[in-house]
Amino acid sequence: MRVYLDNAATTQLEPKVIEAMMPYLQQFYGNPSSIHSFGRETRAAIEKARKLIAGLFHVSPGEIFFTSGGTEANNMALQCSVRDLGVTRIITSPIEHHAVTHTVEALKNEGKIQLDYVALNNDGSVNYENLEQLLTSNPAKTLVSLMHANNEIGTLLDIDKVSNLCITHNAYFHCDTVQTVAHYQLDLQKTKVHFISCAAHKFHGPKGVGFIYINGEAKIKPLIHGGAQERNVRAGTENLYGIIGLAKALEIAYAELDTVSDHIKNLRDHMMRRLLDEIPGVQINSDNNGLYTVLNVNFPASDKNELLLFNLDIAGIAVSGGSACSSGTDIGSHVIAQLKRAPGSTAVRFSFSKFNTMEEIDFAVNKIREMMPVAVS
Amino acid sequence: MRVYLDNAATTQLEPKVIEAMMPYLQQFYGNPSSIHSFGRETRAAIEKARKLIAGLFHVSPGEIFFTSGGTEANNMALQCSVRDLGVTRIITSPIEHHAVTHTVEALKNEGKIQLDYVALNNDGSVNYENLEQLLTSNPAKTLVSLMHANNEIGTLLDIDKVSNLCITHNAYFHCDTVQTVAHYQLDLQKTKVHFISCAAHKFHGPKGVGFIYINGEAKIKPLIHGGAQERNVRAGTENLYGIIGLAKALEIAYAELDTVSDHIKNLRDHMMRRLLDEIPGVQINSDNNGLYTVLNVNFPASDKNELLLFNLDIAGIAVSGGSACSSGTDIGSHVIAQLKRAPGSTAVRFSFSKFNTMEEIDFAVNKIREMMPVAVS
Repeated sequence: MRVYLDNAATTQLEPKVIEAMMPYLQQFYGNPSSIHSFGRETRAAIEKARKLIAGLFHVSPGEIFFTSGGTEANNMALQCSVRDLGVTRIITSPIEHHAVTHTVEALKNEGKIQLDYVALNNDGSVNYENLEQLLTSNPAKTLVSLMHANNEIGTLLDIDKVSNLCITHNAYFHCDTVQTVAHYQLDLQKTKVHFISCAAHKFHGPKGVGFIYINGEAKIKPLIHGGAQERNVRAGTENLYGIIGLAKALEIAYAELDTVSDHIKNLRDHMMRRLLDEIPGVQINSDNNGLYTVLNVNFPASDKNELLLFNLDIAGIAVSGGSACSSGTDIGSHVIAQLKRAPGSTAVRFSFSKFNTMEEIDFAVNKIREMMPVAVS
Repeated sequence: MRVYLDNAATTQLEPKVIEAMMPYLQQFYGNPSSIHSFGRETRAAIEKARKLIAGLFHVSPGEIFFTSGGTEANNMALQCSVRDLGVTRIITSPIEHHAVTHTVEALKNEGKIQLDYVALNNDGSVNYENLEQLLTSNPAKTLVSLMHANNEIGTLLDIDKVSNLCITHNAYFHCDTVQTVAHYQLDLQKTKVHFISCAAHKFHGPKGVGFIYINGEAKIKPLIHGGAQERNVRAGTENLYGIIGLAKALEIAYAELDTVSDHIKNLRDHMMRRLLDEIPGVQINSDNNGLYTVLNVNFPASDKNELLLFNLDIAGIAVSGGSACSSGTDIGSHVIAQLKRAPGSTAVRFSFSKFNTMEEIDFAVNKIREMMPVAVS
C-alpha cells in the first residue's frame, strides 16, 4: 500500500480534468493568437476557461491572467508593483512561501524597496495590531503581501481585516492564495484584493499553469515581454491544455466543495485524534481552525524521529517536513522555526485530498506507532 | 479539406509525444522537489529528459533550464544579462521576434542599456561588417541578441561567424533559436553561444514549455524567484508532462531530421514553383537557402489580395500574415516592412511540417489560383 499524504505539495490529476484536456492535446492545436479557424477554436476555449474562472471569483474576465503557475503569479504581483505602481515599501511576514520571501529579498537587495516584516503571534498568525502600526507609521506607497493560508501550518489570514486595513491606508494588497484557491470560496467583489495567485496542481489540475488575478485598478506591465497574449500583460504562446485543465479542476472543486471539505476534515480530525491519543508527547503545529487540508504534527525528540520521514517513505507513506519547494535543503523549515518547538523535535506535515481514505489514514497512523519509541495502546 | 500551413506559429502534437506524456498525467504525480518516492520518480523523469536534451546539443545537463516556453527563455537571457552580468549595451536587429524586441525596448526605456540595431541587407540578412563595426566602436559590456532563423522570412544567421565576433570582442551572445531547434543540428561545443532558447510547440511538442541553454560561464540569477527548482535559476513547480513531451518531441525530431527536412523541402519547393509559375507578379520574400519550414510569398497589389488571408481561411487553409504573436494587430509585420515591397502587396507566410502532404499543397495552390485576379494556366 502506498499512501500519498503530501497534497499541499501537489495533487494527483483528476481523471475528469485529463478528459477535458485530451481534445486539446489530440485534436485542437492552433496557436490561440492565430486569426484563422485553427487559432479561433483554441482562443475560444481559453476565453471560455477565463470566463468560468472569473465567475467563480466574481471578477471580470479581463482581470484573470494565465501564468506558468503560482510562483510566476506571485513574482508578477511583487516585481511589477514595485516597477509600475510606485510601490517603495513591502510589508510581508517571515513565514510566506519562498516565491514571496525570495522575491521581496531580491527587491530589497536591489535597493528598490524598504522591507518590513509584520510581527507574528505564537501560533504563526499575523499580529494585526502590528500590521496596522506598520501601515500607520510610514507614508511610503506600500504593498502588503500576506498569504491566505500558510502552506506548512495552515494558519488562515483574516483576509477581510487585512483588506480593510489596506483600503484605509491606501496600500496595495497581494494575497498568495495558492493553498486556498479551490478550497475556500473567495468573493473578490466583497473582499478587495489587488492580486491573488493560483497554481492548478494544488487542486487536481495540471502542473505548469496557474493564474494571477489583477484588480483592474492595478495597471501593471509585463514581467515577461513579447507578444500581445493575455492582453499585453503576459507574453508567450499559451499553455492551452494547462489552461483547459485549470478551469476544469477549479469548476469541479467548487462544485464539490462542501462534500470534499467535510471528507477531508474527517480524515484530518481522525488522524489528529489518534496521534494525540496514541503517541506520547505529540503536539499539533497547525491551526485547528486553519486550512483543513493540512495537519502539521510535532513529534518529540528521540533517536527514532530523526529518521521518521525516511522511514515513512520506506513504508510507502509520502509526507513532508517543510514545503516541497524547500526540501533537499538542510536548513529546515523557516515556518516551523517561528513556532519555537523543543530542540530535536520533528515537524511532519500531513496534507490531504479527496482521494485519501480513512483506511489510508489508519494505515499511516499504525505505521507511525510502530516507528515511535513508545506507543501506548 | 482543412489544410494547416502555419507550422511556424505552432504545430500539432505528435501522437508518440502524447503517449510519452500520458503516464505523467495519469500515474506519476509527485512534486519533483519532494524527497519521498512519489517525488523521486518524477524528479528522475525530469533529469532523464534534461540529460537527453543536453546530449543533443553537446552541452552539460547543468546548462539546460526548463521554462514556460521560448518567450520566457528569451526574457531570461536578456533581462538577467543586464541585471547580473554587467551588460550595459545590447546589439540586436529590427526583425527579431517581439519576445526580444519588446524586452530590449523595455530595458532601454528603463534606462538600463544602450540599444543598437545592426544594419540589415536588402534580403533581411544581418550585415556582418556593420555588426563588427558596432562591436569595435564601443567598449561597453555588450550582449548580441540575434535570432538563428527569422520566423517570418526564414533568413538564417551565420551563427559561427557571430559567435566568433562575440568571442573576439568579449561580448555575450544570445541566439533566439525558437524556429531552428529540432530543425537543424546545433553543436554548442563547436559553436560558442551563451544563451539559446526553445519552445516545444514549434516541433510537435506541447505548448507552455521550453528551455533556455545557459553557458556555464554566464552565471545569472532567477527572473522568477522562489523555490530551489532548476538549480536555483527558475523557481516554480515543474511542468512535468510538458518537460517529458518536450524531450520526446526533440528526440523524435533529431532522429527523423534528414527524412523530415527532405520531405518539407520538397513541399516548399513544389509550392514555390507552382506559385511563381501560375500567379503573375508573385515574389518570394523568404530566403531559398534559409529556414526550410517557411515560404513567405508576396502577392501583388490587387483588389483581391486584401481579403486573401480571410478567403484562405474560409477555404480551410491556415496561413499567416506576420507571426502569430503579432496577429490581431493592425500595424502589419515589422519584418516584412524591412523588405520594402510595393505598397498594397500582401505577404503570406506558408509554413510546413512533416504532417503536410503534397496533396494539401496542391489543394492550397489551386485555391489561391481561384482567388487571384488572373490565373495563368
